[in-house]
Amino acid sequence: MSATVHVFGGAGFAGAQLAALVDAHPYFTLGAITARGDAGRRLVDLYPQYRVTDALVAPDPALARAGDFAAVCYPHAAASELVAQLVDAGVRVVDVSADHRLRDAALYPEWYGFTHARPELLGEAVYGLPEAYRDRIRDARLVANPGCYPTAALLALLPLAGRLADVVIDAKSGVSGAGKTPTDAVHFSSVTENVTPYKVLSHRHEPEIAQELGVDVTFTPHLVPADRGELASCYARLTDAPATQDDLFALYRAHYDGHPFVEIVERPPGMRAVQHTNYAQICPLLDARRGRVIAFGAIDNIVKGASGQALQNLNLMAGRPETEGLA
Amino acid sequence: MSATVHVFGGAGFAGAQLAALVDAHPYFTLGAITARGDAGRRLVDLYPQYRVTDALVAPDPALARAGDFAAVCYPHAAASELVAQLVDAGVRVVDVSADHRLRDAALYPEWYGFTHARPELLGEAVYGLPEAYRDRIRDARLVANPGCYPTAALLALLPLAGRLADVVIDAKSGVSGAGKTPTDAVHFSSVTENVTPYKVLSHRHEPEIAQELGVDVTFTPHLVPADRGELASCYARLTDAPATQDDLFALYRAHYDGHPFVEIVERPPGMRAVQHTNYAQICPLLDARRGRVIAFGAIDNIVKGASGQALQNLNLMAGRPETEGLA
Amino acid sequence: MSATVHVFGGAGFAGAQLAALVDAHPYFTLGAITARGDAGRRLVDLYPQYRVTDALVAPDPALARAGDFAAVCYPHAAASELVAQLVDAGVRVVDVSADHRLRDAALYPEWYGFTHARPELLGEAVYGLPEAYRDRIRDARLVANPGCYPTAALLALLPLAGRLADVVIDAKSGVSGAGKTPTDAVHFSSVTENVTPYKVLSHRHEPEIAQELGVDVTFTPHLVPADRGELASCYARLTDAPATQDDLFALYRAHYDGHPFVEIVERPPGMRAVQHTNYAQICPLLDARRGRVIAFGAIDNIVKGASGQALQNLNLMAGRPETEGLA
Amino acid sequence: MSATVHVFGGAGFAGAQLAALVDAHPYFTLGAITARGDAGRRLVDLYPQYRVTDALVAPDPALARAGDFAAVCYPHAAASELVAQLVDAGVRVVDVSADHRLRDAALYPEWYGFTHARPELLGEAVYGLPEAYRDRIRDARLVANPGCYPTAALLALLPLAGRLADVVIDAKSGVSGAGKTPTDAVHFSSVTENVTPYKVLSHRHEPEIAQELGVDVTFTPHLVPADRGELASCYARLTDAPATQDDLFALYRAHYDGHPFVEIVERPPGMRAVQHTNYAQICPLLDARRGRVIAFGAIDNIVKGASGQALQNLNLMAGRPETEGLA
Repeated sequence: MSATVHVFGGAGFAGAQLAALVDAHPYFTLGAITARGDAGRRLVDLYPQYRVTDALVAPDPALARAGDFAAVCYPHAAASELVAQLVDAGVRVVDVSADHRLRDAALYPEWYGFTHARPELLGEAVYGLPEAYRDRIRDARLVANPGCYPTAALLALLPLAGRLADVVIDAKSGVSGAGKTPTDAVHFSSVTENVTPYKVLSHRHEPEIAQELGVDVTFTPHLVPADRGELASCYARLTDAPATQDDLFALYRAHYDGHPFVEIVERPPGMRAVQHTNYAQICPLLDARRGRVIAFGAIDNIVKGASGQALQNLNLMAGRPETEGLA
Repeated sequence: MSATVHVFGGAGFAGAQLAALVDAHPYFTLGAITARGDAGRRLVDLYPQYRVTDALVAPDPALARAGDFAAVCYPHAAASELVAQLVDAGVRVVDVSADHRLRDAALYPEWYGFTHARPELLGEAVYGLPEAYRDRIRDARLVANPGCYPTAALLALLPLAGRLADVVIDAKSGVSGAGKTPTDAVHFSSVTENVTPYKVLSHRHEPEIAQELGVDVTFTPHLVPADRGELASCYARLTDAPATQDDLFALYRAHYDGHPFVEIVERPPGMRAVQHTNYAQICPLLDARRGRVIAFGAIDNIVKGASGQALQNLNLMAGRPETEGLA
Repeated sequence: MSATVHVFGGAGFAGAQLAALVDAHPYFTLGAITARGDAGRRLVDLYPQYRVTDALVAPDPALARAGDFAAVCYPHAAASELVAQLVDAGVRVVDVSADHRLRDAALYPEWYGFTHARPELLGEAVYGLPEAYRDRIRDARLVANPGCYPTAALLALLPLAGRLADVVIDAKSGVSGAGKTPTDAVHFSSVTENVTPYKVLSHRHEPEIAQELGVDVTFTPHLVPADRGELASCYARLTDAPATQDDLFALYRAHYDGHPFVEIVERPPGMRAVQHTNYAQICPLLDARRGRVIAFGAIDNIVKGASGQALQNLNLMAGRPETEGLA
Repeated sequence: MSATVHVFGGAGFAGAQLAALVDAHPYFTLGAITARGDAGRRLVDLYPQYRVTDALVAPDPALARAGDFAAVCYPHAAASELVAQLVDAGVRVVDVSADHRLRDAALYPEWYGFTHARPELLGEAVYGLPEAYRDRIRDARLVANPGCYPTAALLALLPLAGRLADVVIDAKSGVSGAGKTPTDAVHFSSVTENVTPYKVLSHRHEPEIAQELGVDVTFTPHLVPADRGELASCYARLTDAPATQDDLFALYRAHYDGHPFVEIVERPPGMRAVQHTNYAQICPLLDARRGRVIAFGAIDNIVKGASGQALQNLNLMAGRPETEGLA
C-alpha cells in the first residue's frame, strides 16, 4: 500500500529535502521531482548529502494523476497557477509557497505584488500548521504550508492568542531561509561574523503571522551566520496573564498536549537543539516585573519551517501517523 | 610629551586590545600590563595578532604613580578594591569592570552579589559614555566604562530619552563578549550554527541600561556564532513621537552632531560595518502603523563596547583629541 | 531478540552520539551510559539534540554482564584497565579509545606516555576498520575502534597499500575532534575565521596510520572552523601506478565493492557530503605529470570516525546487518 | 608632496581595500576608483567598513595621466589591454590581475585560455613579490602583483629554492579569494561547516609558483569556511638539508632579514595571526625522520595576497618607505 508524492520545484533547499524525506518514507513513493533549470541532472549531483539518485524532470502538471499528492515548492506568485491545475485535476496539494497562506485576497497585491487568479482557493486552502489545524488538514484538498518565521512565531504565541497585545517578534534565521539563488546577501563573505536586520517593517511573513494571531505585530527578521535554524524571540503584553511561571508552562503544556513535534522547554532553546529535525522547542517566560511574556520558538527553517512540515501535512492528508518518516 | 597608561588585567580580550591600542597611541606610553595567571608571558604569545612584545607582570597597585592613568579590566567585584587604591594614590582610572557603573549602591548586592566597599566612589564615578557625559569625563578621577550591551542600546535609544515607554531590547552578541575563559558555552561546537538566548531577565546589564535611560526595560541577550560585534534591536513606544521618518533621522543626527564615533545610517546596520572599529552605527526606524520606534545599534563589543571606549575616555581625560589612536 | 550495549564514557561527543545511535537501534538495547563528572544528569540535558532521556550513571565494570556488549569511550590511557576487566568478564568490547589500536606495545610509552598493562590484548584486539578487517571483527572479543584521522586516511590510501612511497597526509578536522573539554584552543574566538596546524610531527594518529599502511608517513593535522567533519588530502608516489585515471577509479571501486559505507566519487569531496552520516567519500586522482596519486577521504569524525564506526563494528560482532541503525 | 594612485576595478574585494588603503595613506592621493556595473555608487555603499565616500566612475584609461600610478584589479584576460594603454601613456602600473605574472607567453593560452596581445610586456614586468624582487620593483614601469596562493607558498619555500624536490603544496583559503561575484560555491550554505578541495591539478596559480620556485609542484587548494586568510602547508625534500631545526630557522631568518612583513615563527601559524594585516608568518619545520621540510606560510589573501602587497609595491615604486600606510 502506498501513495505517490510528486515534488514540484525540487532543486531548491526545501524541495530537495522534501524529496529526500519522501524517498525515505515507509509509505509514500517518490514520484516526479521537477526543476526548470536543472532538469536532467540527478538530485544527488545538486545535494550529495541526500543521496537521492532520481533525475530531475521538467515541470508538467500532467506528471501527477488524480489521487496522487503533490508538494509545490515554487517561489511566491509562481505557484498559484500550477496549484490550481493540480487541484482541478484531483491531485491533493501541499503548497509550500506563500500563494495560499493569506485568506484575504486583497493582501496579495499589497504584500506580494500580484493579483491572485483563483481567490476561491484562498477560502478553501487550510493553513498547514498541524498544531493549529490538524483536523481540517486531514481532509483538505489544498494545504497552504506556513512560512518558516510564522511557524516559529505562531508556535511560540498561539497558546496566548486572544489575549495578546503589543506584540514584538524579533526573529533570527540561518541563511538557507534566503533560498538557493546566489546573491551578494548570501555570499559567505557577507554573512560570516555578521548579524543583519533585513526587510524591517516590510517582510511578507508579517501579515501571515498577524492573520493567525488575530493581532497586529511588529516583526523584525535578522540574518545570522548559520545555515539552518530559526529562533523567534517574541514579546507581548497579556490582557489576562498567568499568575506564575509555572502556570505559564502548564498552559503551554496543555495547549500542545498530543502534538508530537512541540517540545516545551524550561530554558530558552538554541537553534542547535532542533536542527535537521521537525521539532519545535518553545519556551515561554513570564516577565512579571513588566507584565510581559517572552516566548521563544526555535525550529529548523527548512524542516519544520518547510519540508518537514509539508511531510507532516502529507501524513495527515493520507491518514498516516503524523510522525511517519519524520522521527 | 606623554602620559603613561597602565593596563590592569591585560590577559583578557578587552585588556589585551586596550594594551595594543595604547602601545600604538601617538601620545600615551604603555606602562605595566598585569595578569595573574599569565605573568611572565609576553602579550604577543597570548595574542599574536597584536604584536605587542611586552611581558605581563603580576598585579600591584604600586606599578602606577600619581599622575599616571590606569585602566582596570578585571571581572566585576574584583576591580573595586584596586580601583579605590589607585584613585587614592592619585592615579586617574578608567574602570572597565562593572564595579562603578551603577550609582545606587543597593543594586550591587541585588545584581552582582556583593556589597560595595566604597559607595562614595559610585557617586563620584562618571559613566564613561562620551556621547552622554563627555564634559564630565574630561575632569574625572574615575570613569566607569560602560558595558558592551549598554553602549549599543543607549546609543540607539538616548536621543529619545524622556519619552520612552514599553522598551524591549533584543540584543545579539559575538562570543568574545563572554570573555576568554573557556567554558562549555563558548566551545566552538556549542556556538557554531547556533543562536542562544541567555540570562534572560537576569543579565546584569539591565539595571545599567535602565539607570541611563531612566525607564525600565526588558532586555534579552542572545549569543550568536561570531567573534566580535554586537547588535541591539530596540523597540519602544514614544509619548511624543516624531511625525515622519525624516524627522526621526534628523533628531538623531542633531543629537549626535559633533560625536565622531556615531554614524546615523538609513538602513539597519550589520555588525560587520563596525567590527574592529570604535564606531557605532545607529539606525532609528519609525513603525508608524504601530506607534513604535525600532532603533538598531551596532558596535564592536570589545572596541566601542570596552577597550576602544576606554581609550576614548582616556583621550578625553588627558585633554587629547577624542579620536586619537582610534581612527 | 536483542542484545544490550553499554556505553562507558557517555558524556563525551563520541560516547553520547553512540548512546543515541544504540538507543534508536532496532536490535540493540541501550544499557548503562556512564560518566564520572556528570553522573546523575540525563543525557538530554547535556545533548538536547539527541533526545535520550536516560540518566548517566557512575562507571562500574559490573554494569555489564557476560554476553553483553560494551563500548569504551574513554581518553587514552584511561581505557585500558576497564577494557581488560570487561573482556575478562566475558563482555565483548569495542574500545573507542586509542588503547588497543597499536599492535606494538613499545609504541605506547613512546607515543602515549604509558606502559600498556595488558600487552597480550594488543595481539588479540582486531583493528576495527570494517573495510579492512570485517571478517575478523565478527568474532572478536575486543575491537580497537580506529582514530578519526586514520579512518579517513586509510580509507583513502588502503587500495594502494604495498606500492606506496613518499606519503604526505594533510588533514583538516572540525573542532569536535578535540573533544568536549573546554580549552583555549576550542574557544569559539580562537577557532572562527582561523585554520591552524597543530601537533605537527607529533600527533598520535601517525603511528596508527603507518601501522596499517605498512609505510612511514608525514602526517599534518589542521584545525578548521567547523564542528563536524574531516578531510584527509593524501599525496603519494606509487611504485606501480595505474595507467589512467579510469584505471585508478576502477581499482578503488573494486577494492570497496560490497562495502556499503564507502562512496568512490569522481570529484574531490567536501566534508558536508558526509556530515552526520557513517559514509566515507573517497576520491583518488592521478597526478600523472608528477607521478603521484592524490587521494581525498572525507568522513564525519564523530560518526564514521568514532561512534558510527563503533556501531558498525557492534553490528558485525552481533551478526547483524552492517548498516543496521546507521542508514 | 604627493602622487596620485588610481584604482581600476575598485568594486571587487582587492580593489576596494586597495582604494581604502590608498585613501588613508600619508603620501598617496586616491585618484579615480573605477567600476563597470557599480559606477555612480559610492564605495561606502558597497563596503561600509571602509568608510570611503568617493563615487565609483566608469573605467577610462584617460583618468590616469603620465606620472600617476595605477593599480589594475581586473579579472585575468580583462586587464591586459588596459595595462598596456596605461604603460604606454606613462602611467606606472601595478597589475593585480594575473595578466603579467607569467614570463612565458605560451603559458597564457594553456592555463588562462587567451593569447597575450603584448608579450613584450611579460618580459618587462617585474614579479611584485618585494621579498624577492625589491630592487627591481623600485624602478619598474609595470609590476605584476603575485597571486594570493603564490605569495603564501613562495614566502614559505623561497629560502630553499635551488634545492627543492618533490614539492607538495596543500593550501587553504578563505572564501574572499573566490571574489565578490555570488555563485553556488560561495553561498554561505555551501561553505559553512565544510572544507572542499577545488581545481585540483588545474588551478592557475600552479605555473606561477613553479616559475618562481624553478621546480615543478603539486598544488591543491581547499576552500575553508572563513572570509579572510590563507595557509599554505608546503612539503618538500631537500637535496641539501639543514642539519638541525635551529639551522633551518637560522636560514629563514637570514633570508628574510630586513624584510619588514615576514615574521619567522617557531610554531605553525594560524590564519588569524595575520588577518587584516600585510604580514606573512612563516614556519619551517624539519621532518628529520623522513628527510622533509614542512614549511607553513600564512597571509591575509586580500591584503598581503593582493591589495596590501600592491601598496607595498607602490611604496617601493614611489621611493617611499616600504611599510608606509601598511603598519
